[in-house]
Parts: sequence; C-alpha cells; structure tokens
Amino acid sequence: MSSTISIFDTTLRDGTQGEGISLSADDKLKIALKLDALGVHYIEGGNPGSNGKDIEFFQRVKAFNLSAKLTAFGSTRRKNSIAEQDASLLRIVESGVPAATLVGKAWDFHVHTALQTTLEENLAMIHDSFAFLKMKGMEAMYDAEHFFDGYKHNPDYALAALRKAAEAGADWLVLCDTNGGTLPGEIREIVGRVRAELDTPIGIHTHNDCELAVANTLAAVEAGARQVQGTINGYGERCGNANLCSIIPNLQLKMNYSCLPEEQLGTLTSTARYVSEIANVHMPVGQAYVGNAAFAHKGGIHVSAIMKDAKTYEHVQPELVGNKQRILVSELAGQSNIISKAAELGLDINNNNEKTKEIMNRIKELEHQGYQFEGADASMELLLREAFGEFKPIFQVESFKIHVERTQAGMISEAIVKLNVDGQQVHTAAEGNGPVNALDNALRKSLVQFFPQIDSIHLSDYKVRVIDEKDATAAKVRVLVESTGLDNSWSTVGVSGNVIEASWEALIDSFRYALMNMVKLEISGNEKSERIGLSNH
Amino acid sequence: MSSTISIFDTTLRDGTQGEGISLSADDKLKIALKLDALGVHYIEGGNPGSNGKDIEFFQRVKAFNLSAKLTAFGSTRRKNSIAEQDASLLRIVESGVPAATLVGKAWDFHVHTALQTTLEENLAMIHDSFAFLKMKGMEAMYDAEHFFDGYKHNPDYALAALRKAAEAGADWLVLCDTNGGTLPGEIREIVGRVRAELDTPIGIHTHNDCELAVANTLAAVEAGARQVQGTINGYGERCGNANLCSIIPNLQLKMNYSCLPEEQLGTLTSTARYVSEIANVHMPVGQAYVGNAAFAHKGGIHVSAIMKDAKTYEHVQPELVGNKQRILVSELAGQSNIISKAAELGLDINNNNEKTKEIMNRIKELEHQGYQFEGADASMELLLREAFGEFKPIFQVESFKIHVERTQAGMISEAIVKLNVDGQQVHTAAEGNGPVNALDNALRKSLVQFFPQIDSIHLSDYKVRVIDEKDATAAKVRVLVESTGLDNSWSTVGVSGNVIEASWEALIDSFRYALMNMVKLEISGNEKSERIGLSNH
Repeated sequence: MSSTISIFDTTLRDGTQGEGISLSADDKLKIALKLDALGVHYIEGGNPGSNGKDIEFFQRVKAFNLSAKLTAFGSTRRKNSIAEQDASLLRIVESGVPAATLVGKAWDFHVHTALQTTLEENLAMIHDSFAFLKMKGMEAMYDAEHFFDGYKHNPDYALAALRKAAEAGADWLVLCDTNGGTLPGEIREIVGRVRAELDTPIGIHTHNDCELAVANTLAAVEAGARQVQGTINGYGERCGNANLCSIIPNLQLKMNYSCLPEEQLGTLTSTARYVSEIANVHMPVGQAYVGNAAFAHKGGIHVSAIMKDAKTYEHVQPELVGNKQRILVSELAGQSNIISKAAELGLDINNNNEKTKEIMNRIKELEHQGYQFEGADASMELLLREAFGEFKPIFQVESFKIHVERTQAGMISEAIVKLNVDGQQVHTAAEGNGPVNALDNALRKSLVQFFPQIDSIHLSDYKVRVIDEKDATAAKVRVLVESTGLDNSWSTVGVSGNVIEASWEALIDSFRYALMNMVKLEISGNEKSERIGLSNH
Repeated sequence: MSSTISIFDTTLRDGTQGEGISLSADDKLKIALKLDALGVHYIEGGNPGSNGKDIEFFQRVKAFNLSAKLTAFGSTRRKNSIAEQDASLLRIVESGVPAATLVGKAWDFHVHTALQTTLEENLAMIHDSFAFLKMKGMEAMYDAEHFFDGYKHNPDYALAALRKAAEAGADWLVLCDTNGGTLPGEIREIVGRVRAELDTPIGIHTHNDCELAVANTLAAVEAGARQVQGTINGYGERCGNANLCSIIPNLQLKMNYSCLPEEQLGTLTSTARYVSEIANVHMPVGQAYVGNAAFAHKGGIHVSAIMKDAKTYEHVQPELVGNKQRILVSELAGQSNIISKAAELGLDINNNNEKTKEIMNRIKELEHQGYQFEGADASMELLLREAFGEFKPIFQVESFKIHVERTQAGMISEAIVKLNVDGQQVHTAAEGNGPVNALDNALRKSLVQFFPQIDSIHLSDYKVRVIDEKDATAAKVRVLVESTGLDNSWSTVGVSGNVIEASWEALIDSFRYALMNMVKLEISGNEKSERIGLSNH
C-alpha cells in the first residue's frame, strides 16, 4: 500500500521571492488554474496581509471553485500584541480561504536577533495565532522557520515551538530549512526525532542552497513527513525552493508514494513549461524530468542502444511525465501531440497518410528554427488548417516599414503597411506608442473598413524571449502575442532575428485567426454581432 | 582528521555531451588552465581515440606543466579483438597522459542488448584493457557503466566486472549512475557493499536526471567513495553530470572532507563563471553557491535581519566560495534594502539624512513607472552613484533614429545615433540583425574609437516584459539587458511605452556602467589592459 503525500504548491507565494519573478494578479490566476488541473492538494496564493495584489487574487479566484485547497500566508502575531487585533491575521481570515500557513520562529538565535523579543513571548505568539485561526474554523499550518538550524543549536526550544503550535490546534507542523544549508542525513534524523515526539502530521519545506532541496525533501518523506512544500521549476529566493517537478515523479514513480492521479502526472511537463512562460523565466533545457533535453540523446553509441531498447539510457519512460524522447541527430518531434491536436480540430490525420508526414516535417523544421507551439495554439491551428486546405488567408502582406525616432518632442513611431485584401490594395500609415503598436494600428486601420468587428479584439499580452543567448541582441527572438475578443483568447507566435519581424508575424497570425473565426460565425448566423458586442468595452 | 577526496573533473569530456556545448581545442586549453588553478586532482581532457580535436588538446596542454593529472578517456577493447592492437587504446597511450579512464559494461542487460556479446567476453574485454594500460605504466580507472542499474538486476555480474578490473590492476573502480535514475539510499547501500567486497579505491560518477546527482555523490562519499567525478556547473548529457561547484563546498565546508586548499576554494565562483563564458552557456542566477543570486536577499524582513547578522539568512559565508552578498532592491522590500546596497558601494547613506529621502523618493517614483531594480543591479548602482555625485556620464545622447523595412530582399534594420563624447560630436550609422542590434552596433561604433576595451563586452541576455497587460502593444514594456565581460556580468533596465526606447535606455546604462568600471581600472594601474586583452580574441 502506498502512502499519500500532500503536495503544497507555493509558486505564487515563496516562488515570487525569486529574482526576476513578478506575477500580476492575472498571472497568478492563470497559474492557479493550471496547478489545479495538475492536481496539487494546496495552492498557497499569497500574503493578503502585506500585498494588495494578493487580496485581488484571492477575491477573483473564488469564482473558479478550484478542487485544490487555497491557502493564505502570514506570520504569527506581532510581539506584545493581541492576535484578535492583528491586522495581518484579520486580513487572512477576511480573504475567505479555507486554510492558512503562518511562519513563526523556531530558532532561539532568530528570536533574539531578528525578532528581538523573549523566548517565552515567541511561544505565546505561536500559540495565540494558531488558537485564533482554529477559532475561525480554518485549517492551519505552522511553517517552523529555520527549524533544522534551530534544532541543531537548541533542540528543546525548537521542539517547544512545535509543541505550542500543536497544542493550539495546528493541523500541520511544517519543518523549514529556510537557509537551505542542511544535509539529507541531518534532515532524516531530525524529522525522525520530531515524529517520535509529536503526533501532529509533519510537512517539509526546503531550499536549494546546497543543490540538495529535492534530496532533503525525499529524506524527510522517508522519515515520516506527509506534506511537501515546493514550487514549480523550483522558483524561489536565492537558489530557489524545492522543485515539485522533480519531487513528484521521484516520489511517485520511484518511491511508491501517491501524489497525483496518474493521468495528471502526464501533464507535469506542460505545466512546468506553461508556468515558465507566464513567469517569463527561461527554462533550463536540462531540467530533470520536464526539460527539453531531459530525454535527449546525442548521437553515437547511446542513440543506437536507445533504438534497440529505450531502457538502455532512460531511467523512466518520458511519457509518464508528459515529456518525450528526442534524438538530437535525427529529430522525431512529438507526433502524438500534433495528431491529437488535429483530431481535436476535426481534421483527418493519422500516422499513415502522406499529408501527416508533410505536416510533421514542416513543424519539425519550424521548431528547429525556434518556434514553439506549446504557448501558441492559434498559430498551430492555422498551420494545420492551411495544410488541410481548410484555411486561406483573407489578406496578403505586400510590404511594411517602421520609423522610430527620438526628437526633442519625444519618441515618434510610425508604421507604413501595404496589404492586399481580396484583390484590393490598401496602403496605410499609422503612429503608435511604439513600433509594434504602430504596426498593430496600421493593420487595424487597413482591415477595419472590410471587417468592422476587428474593433472588438485587442492584444492582451505580448512577450519576447531570446532563443539563442550567445549574442543577445543579434540572436533570434520568439514573440508570443495573446489576443482577446469574442469571449475568447488565443495565442500566436513569431520568430526572427528581428524583434519587429517576429512581432509582425505573431500579429498577422492573430488577425488571421480572428478573421477566420468571424467568417465562421457569420456563416452560422447573427449570433456573431451580439457576442462581439460583449467584449467591446 | 578529515579524509581527502580526489576531485576528477570531466567538464572537457562528459560535459561536452550537453546539448549546445561545443568546445574548441583552444576553449579546452583555457578551461584546463582555470581548473588547474582551482586545484582539482584530475582533468579528463577528452577521447583521443575518437576525436582529432582532443588529440590536439593533449599535445598543446603538455607545454603548461599542469599540477593536476591529465587523463584520457576511452572504452575497453572491442569485442573479439586484442587490446594491444586496439586503435583507441593505442591512441590513449600515444597521447602521453599519465592516466586514463576506460568505460566498460557492468550491467548484463547492456552486454546483451547494446554490446551484443557474451558475459564472459565482456569480462575479458575489461581484464585485457586494464592489463594493457598498466603494462604501459599508466594510472588506470574503470568507469563501471550503469553500475547501479546493473547491481540491482544482477549483483554478482556487476561485482564480477569490478573484480576483473581490479585483478588486472585498475587503480580506481568508478561506479557510474549512467542513466541518473538511482536514489541516494540505494547509492549508499550499494557503495557500502562494494567496499566490503573489494579493496581497490572507489570513485563515484552520477547524473542529474532525478535532480539528485549532488546528493547521490555525497551519499557515495559517506559510504566510502574517495574519488568524485563531475563537471563545472553540472554540464553534461540530458540533465547534466554531478555539479562539482556544489559538491566541493558541500564536502569541504559542511562534511569536513578535504578537497581543495582553502584559498583556492575562494576562486570557485570565478571559475564557474569563467567556464560558463567559455562554454557560452547562460548561468542560472540561482545556481547553488556560485550563482549571482545565491546570496541575494529580497524580502524586507529578511534584509533587515541580514543587516543585524548575516548568519540569519545565509548558510555559509559567501566569500568562502568567492561569491558575495547582494541586497535586491524591490517593491517587496523597504528602505533597508536600498540603504544596505548603498553601504555596499561605500556611499554615506543612512536613515536620517536629506539625500536618503530624496533617493528613496526617486526610486519609489521610478518603481511606480514600472522600473524594477532587483534584476538590474548596475542601473541601481548608477542611480545611487549619480545621486552622490560619484558618477558623471562619459557620453551624452543627442538623438537616435531607427528604420526597419521589409523589402523583397528581406528585412533591413538601420540605426542612426548622434552622441556627444567628452565635448566631441559623433554621428554614426550601423545596420543590425534587428533594431536593437542595430542600435547596439551603432553605439559600439561610436564609442570604440574612444574606449577600445568596449570590444571585450557583449550582451548575454535580453528580456522584454509587458508591464500593464490591458492593452498589450500600447502598454509599457520593461527591458532587462544582461552584459558580460571578463569575469563579471551586470544587468540594466529600461522602461517605456516604446520597446525601442526601453531597450535603448538599458543599453545606454550597460555601456555607462562598463565605462565607469574601465575608467576605475585605468586609475588603479595597468592591470586593465592585460585583463581586457585576454578575452579580446
């Protein structure tokens, strides 16, 4: 019988402490939905006591009725005050989440140095805060900050802190290796001793400062911890938090614990990549399990052995985590993804026909150039429909030009666009806030006379990523554009050595996709005008 | 008494199996010199049997009389042949190195499936090959491929393979977790059993497919292994090899083993960054011990505690590995971050003076506009130094212009820049791969005549982030630019509604920061010209 390990995701809270990571309430909402689909048990949304953005997130997320338990983060009450009047604790309760995590000191050195209060007062702070949350009917977790360092210096006091939280009704005692300096053997031993002393379920929260966060988490589970706190891709302060994308498959595929339903484990790779896209953080190709090179084999002896039996050089089947094998010499892209996407669109595609081979080759070639369709469904759909003769672009581009100039009066950006719409040449110019906005405006101006509904769509996100970092401003860039309208949103991609050209490609795809759907709506009756009116705010 | 662990670096051999890593003989030479200065015991230079580049490397490296022992890599002899006539083994001997590592099968499944020979013949291949190397007077190491997988399936055969090598005189038995799928507990147990069976010293070689390579290495050392194989920054096939930059400080600072002389451990960070430069691989900011963010503090509470005592949030002193503490300035933090940043720069700032208030307001205002300084240390430093009158820009921008056009011949991007350098007007134009690259080129062209050292810096990363997503192409964007030169890298930021202007700002800051430091070097003597000359290849 396998034990269940609760997965507690703190990407939205501790993950945002990572350098260069900053998530809007919108970003947080998107990631929360993806985490919920992955099947994690807890989603820590943020700190309503210190952050207005997080309050907005907790309000908006309610509409989605997630299966995961949402949790809010805060600290034990301030020293020499009353829990019932603590503004941060009150805001946690007001946020309406069913569960909360409070961090509190467990290392005597920190009580003296950082908190600057007495050991007794710190214990009272822990006790009062948990008693308050439990009185409010919430599930309550104690993040015992610096627990392992504290235990090594003063085990009695570290245990006393845990005991206080347990006495006040805390549901979980989460042992934190806050500075990330503890070794697996120490973790194993100390978790074992805590288990012998206390009955409350134990959680583990580690950091990667010794490149041991995953190993430390596994050691704690082996010693009896039943909740694992971590983040997607290991985002977090300094060297990051424990990486759930490695921990979950290790626990589930290798150690016989149960974390996620098997079919959901198969979405791990796409979840990891989605979160890296939203967070706009480059994902290392060699990331364990979910990286693009995690199952990539480079030429020679390895490849010939792999062709005989994949087990020769693969420790698990890549598909179990939603990843795929890649042979770097003769690349065989993920056919099954493409086939299932085409089937979803009602296109007749299968392994055997000639057209399939043609499309696969085309996609392989584009991926080789740096395109990535994981975040660009609409571009993929256009590609597939075009290959099946189901889509013919309504307009053609003859040329475009951009001028950007800094004058005394400020920046000027101007775009000149020449299109051919249904045989008619349209030559337009427009200014904009920047070159891409000027292009967007010129395109709209050209098209709106033919398709007035164009007015109802707008671009809701625009991201640029350098693909080849060798020489950054001369390298290729990938632009992702997200557009919204028609109750819907869709994403498109462009790749070029030139950021303007890449943006232009993604813009053109976006307009083409929108027009394709408008034409379809037109055919299916007058429903269109109402729907488009809706999002024209 | 602490035991000595031999550090065996295979960056130049197994490291080059990593996706996107390719080293010339020149690159290898530079890295070998740096590794030797770090003090590793073995440097595996490559495979003279399969690679002409490696033969060149072995020839050229002789001139440098390294302290580290150079080793060549190869396989046990071909099946059904004679070791004395094996072309690869002969080339290893001819390469003139004092030591060699031979990989040979230890998993019966691989003998059948990949090698396609009998179990007996594989044992003979091992025996003959090591007997041959020993006859030639070389130190010889047996890389027992897939040893742990082999042991789990057929322990007797895996041990028989080791025994054969030992009987033939192998000096080290290196147990390899080739597929990277083994867990630390298994490693510990199996290494312990091998030690009980055989007297030959044991080495450990792990891969990071479960994000456990470091932990697995430490477990093997605890169980008795005395040689550690790994690579700088963990470069290697799929998810990489065991990362020596984490293993060495873990062993030496935390586990009381001796690996490197203490003062050489202090060059670990610069070694890691140097190798990433030569290999042209972006180094993750959060890399343990040596990453740019490994000792960076962001949260307000953390920072105020750090100011009281660094031990509160640092597991080791950063200087021990040649890294340093960084205080990130961000919206999440308070004044204390900015004050300590200024103190780090030697500026006279404190809570009470008027200038501090002025600077705080300026930074608050910039953050409100969308600037984020946590990822842009260099821009922050310029801002602070300018406020204190310690920095005066060496050049002024009078105007710039961009043209981008799609013609029949493809995309053209041209930048025209007018600068004032020390009172002299410089008016230049340049083309580029895209508008930002064209600006970068025009700026360099303008400045290089005054500051030839400009040639030695390059842009290593370029990121664009939309700040307000409501109307994406008309929204503000934040551009982060990372630049690299010498042993150093720095980041700058620009914000504007216009992606070109934001990029321009970040570029200007980057050049100003570089020039400020070049001028400083000039003042501090002629060290500069030598240092800059080195990387100007």
